[in-house]
Amino acid sequence: MSRFLTEQRKSLVPYTPGEQPKILNLIKLNTNESPYPPVAEVTERAREEAERLYLYPDPECKALCEAFAARCGVEADQVIAVNGSDEILNFAFMAYCDKDHPAVFPDITYGFYSVFADLNGVPYQEIPLNDDLTVNPKDYVGIGKTVFLANPNAPSGIALSRDTIEEIIQSNPNNVVIVDEAYVDFGAESCVPLINKYDNLLVTQTFSKSRSMAGARLGFGIGCKDLIRDLNTIRYSTNPYNVNRMTMAAGIATLAWDEVTKERCRTIAETRRTTDEALRALGFETTPSQANFIFARHPNADGGEIYRKLKERGILVRHFDKARINQYNRITVGTPQQMQALLTALKEILEELL
Amino acid sequence: MSRFLTEQRKSLVPYTPGEQPKILNLIKLNTNESPYPPVAEVTERAREEAERLYLYPDPECKALCEAFAARCGVEADQVIAVNGSDEILNFAFMAYCDKDHPAVFPDITYGFYSVFADLNGVPYQEIPLNDDLTVNPKDYVGIGKTVFLANPNAPSGIALSRDTIEEIIQSNPNNVVIVDEAYVDFGAESCVPLINKYDNLLVTQTFSKSRSMAGARLGFGIGCKDLIRDLNTIRYSTNPYNVNRMTMAAGIATLAWDEVTKERCRTIAETRRTTDEALRALGFETTPSQANFIFARHPNADGGEIYRKLKERGILVRHFDKARINQYNRITVGTPQQMQALLTALKEILEELL
Repeated sequence: MSRFLTEQRKSLVPYTPGEQPKILNLIKLNTNESPYPPVAEVTERAREEAERLYLYPDPECKALCEAFAARCGVEADQVIAVNGSDEILNFAFMAYCDKDHPAVFPDITYGFYSVFADLNGVPYQEIPLNDDLTVNPKDYVGIGKTVFLANPNAPSGIALSRDTIEEIIQSNPNNVVIVDEAYVDFGAESCVPLINKYDNLLVTQTFSKSRSMAGARLGFGIGCKDLIRDLNTIRYSTNPYNVNRMTMAAGIATLAWDEVTKERCRTIAETRRTTDEALRALGFETTPSQANFIFARHPNADGGEIYRKLKERGILVRHFDKARINQYNRITVGTPQQMQALLTALKEILEELL
Repeated sequence: MSRFLTEQRKSLVPYTPGEQPKILNLIKLNTNESPYPPVAEVTERAREEAERLYLYPDPECKALCEAFAARCGVEADQVIAVNGSDEILNFAFMAYCDKDHPAVFPDITYGFYSVFADLNGVPYQEIPLNDDLTVNPKDYVGIGKTVFLANPNAPSGIALSRDTIEEIIQSNPNNVVIVDEAYVDFGAESCVPLINKYDNLLVTQTFSKSRSMAGARLGFGIGCKDLIRDLNTIRYSTNPYNVNRMTMAAGIATLAWDEVTKERCRTIAETRRTTDEALRALGFETTPSQANFIFARHPNADGGEIYRKLKERGILVRHFDKARINQYNRITVGTPQQMQALLTALKEILEELL
C-alpha cells in the first residue's frame, strides 16, 4: 500500500474472487457460471448496441427495469439495475447499516458481506450455522439488526423456505432484511412476492448465474418503492451510468428468452441431481443444494488435496481455506459432459488417495 | 426516502447527470459525448466477446491494462481499469480522504466531487475560481489537503499547464493530487509523464469523450504502483468484476485504432475553433476551452432562456443553474453540421431576444 492510504482503509482485506485462469481447455467449475452461452439474439442485440457506444446509456435503465419488473410481476419503480449484484449489496450496506444498525449474517455465507461491512465501517455479527451447515432461522427472529441472508446460502446451497424467511422479515419491522437470491432460479423459493407486503424487504438477484451473463455484469434489487428510491440516491451518488448500453440490450434480450433460461435451469437441476448421486456413490457427503453448485467432502480424503489433484487434471473447483468448511469443495454444476469428466477424475484421485 | 435510510445518507444530494431524452432527431450537445461512432472493428470485437458472456470477465483486466499502459508509455501495474472514470474518482475519495485529509477543489468544477465527498463523509474546501473562471494555481500550492483538479476544468474548458500542476504536486508531498483528465485529449497537456517522478500523483482518464465509448463505461487511473495497489484494494472490496467483457474487448480494439482517435480529436479541436469564432461573431463571450465543449454567455441574453429556446428547436445543451455560471451554456462540440444547426438556431434566438 502507499503511505497515503487512510487509516480506515489500511486494514481492509478485499474479497478474493474465484480464479480466472487463462489456461485453455480447463473445465471451469469454480465460479458458478452457467455452462450455456447466451442465445444468438442476445449476442446480436449487444452488437447492435455497440454501434451506439459513443452515446451514454440511459441512467434510469428504464427499458431494462420495465422488462425485468414485468418478468417478476412487480412495478418498474420497485426495481433497480446494477453493475452486477455485488453493487446492490454494497449499496444496501451503505444505505441501511451504520453503527446504530449493525449487520448480521451467518458465519459461513457469501464472503463479500464481511468485506462490505469493513469497507463501510459497519459493525457486524456472524451467527454460526448449525453443524449440518443449515441456517437456524430462530437466530434471526427479532434480532433488530440489518439482516443479510443468501437464499440458497453459499457455499452450502441450502435454502430456507419463503415462509421461514417471512417470519424473519416480519419480526424485524425496524430493520431491512436483504435476501440475496443469486442462486434462487435453480430450485429455491423467491421472496419477490413478499415485497408488496413488507417495506423492509430487499431482494437481490443476478444475471450471472441462471441467465448466462456473468461477463456482462448485471444485477437487480427488488423492493418497495421507497427502498428503491434510497438505493437510487446511492447509485446517483456513486456511478449514475453504472450499467452500460451493451449489457442493457443483452439483458432485455435475455428476458425475452426467459423460457430458455427456465429450461436451462431445469437441466442444471437435473444434472445436479445425477451428479450428487454419483458423488455419494463414490463416498462423498454433500449438502442438499438448491443452487447450481454442489458442496462436497469425502470422509477419508482431504478437501485441499482433492482440489489440487483436480486442478492438476485441468478441473478447477473452489476450495475455501476456512475453518469448518476446509474439507469441502464447491463444484459448479456444468454440462453433463463436464460432470462426467469430474467424476472420472475424482474416481482416479480417490484410488490414489485411499 | 424510506424510514430505514441511515442518518448519514439522509442528507445526500446525488449528482444530476445531463438529460438523456429519448426524443428522435435531437441534436444532443449536453453531455460531451463524441459525435463519432466507434470504428467497425470495435463493434465487431464487442460482438465476439458477447458470445462468451456466460463467463466472468478477467477481474485483473490484464490485457486491457497492458494495452492502455503501452499507449500511455507506462507499466501495466501503474494503471487500473474502472467502470467509467466516476468510479476511480470515488475510489480516490475512499482511499485518500478522511477527516484528517480533507478534499479541496475549485468552487466551479465537475459537480460530482462534492457528491463523492458527502457520500464518503469527507470534509472539503471549495476554492473560488478567478472572475475569468481560471484556477489560481497559487491557491493550491502547499495546501496540505487531497487536491482534485479537473484539467481542463469543467465546465470552463480552461486548462493549466503541466508545469503549473507539477508545482502543486511537488508542494503537497504528503497529500495525493488527483488530476482528472477526462477532456485532456482535445488539446491540454497530460500529467501522465509525471507519474514516475511523484508518488502522490493520480491521473484519471475516460474513454467516454475522445474515444467514443461513453455507452461502454470505461475509465482508468494512472499512478505509481503503490497508489494503484491501494485503488485495487478498494476495487476488490467493492466490485472486482467492475469492467464487463464487451467493454474490455471494445477498449482494446479502440486502443488499436488510436490514430483514428487522434484524428478525430484534431477534427473536434478544429470544429471548436471555428464554432468559437462564429459564436463570438454573434456577440457571445466564451472561455478559452481546450475541451470538446464551449462555455458561452451572451452579454444581452439570459443563459437559461437561450437553453430553453434551443431545446424548443431540438438542440440540447447543458445549463447549470448555479451562481456565477447561470448565464453560461456548455455546448458540446459535435460535427460541423451539428454546429451549423446550432449557430443558425442561436442567430434566430438572438433576433427574437434582442
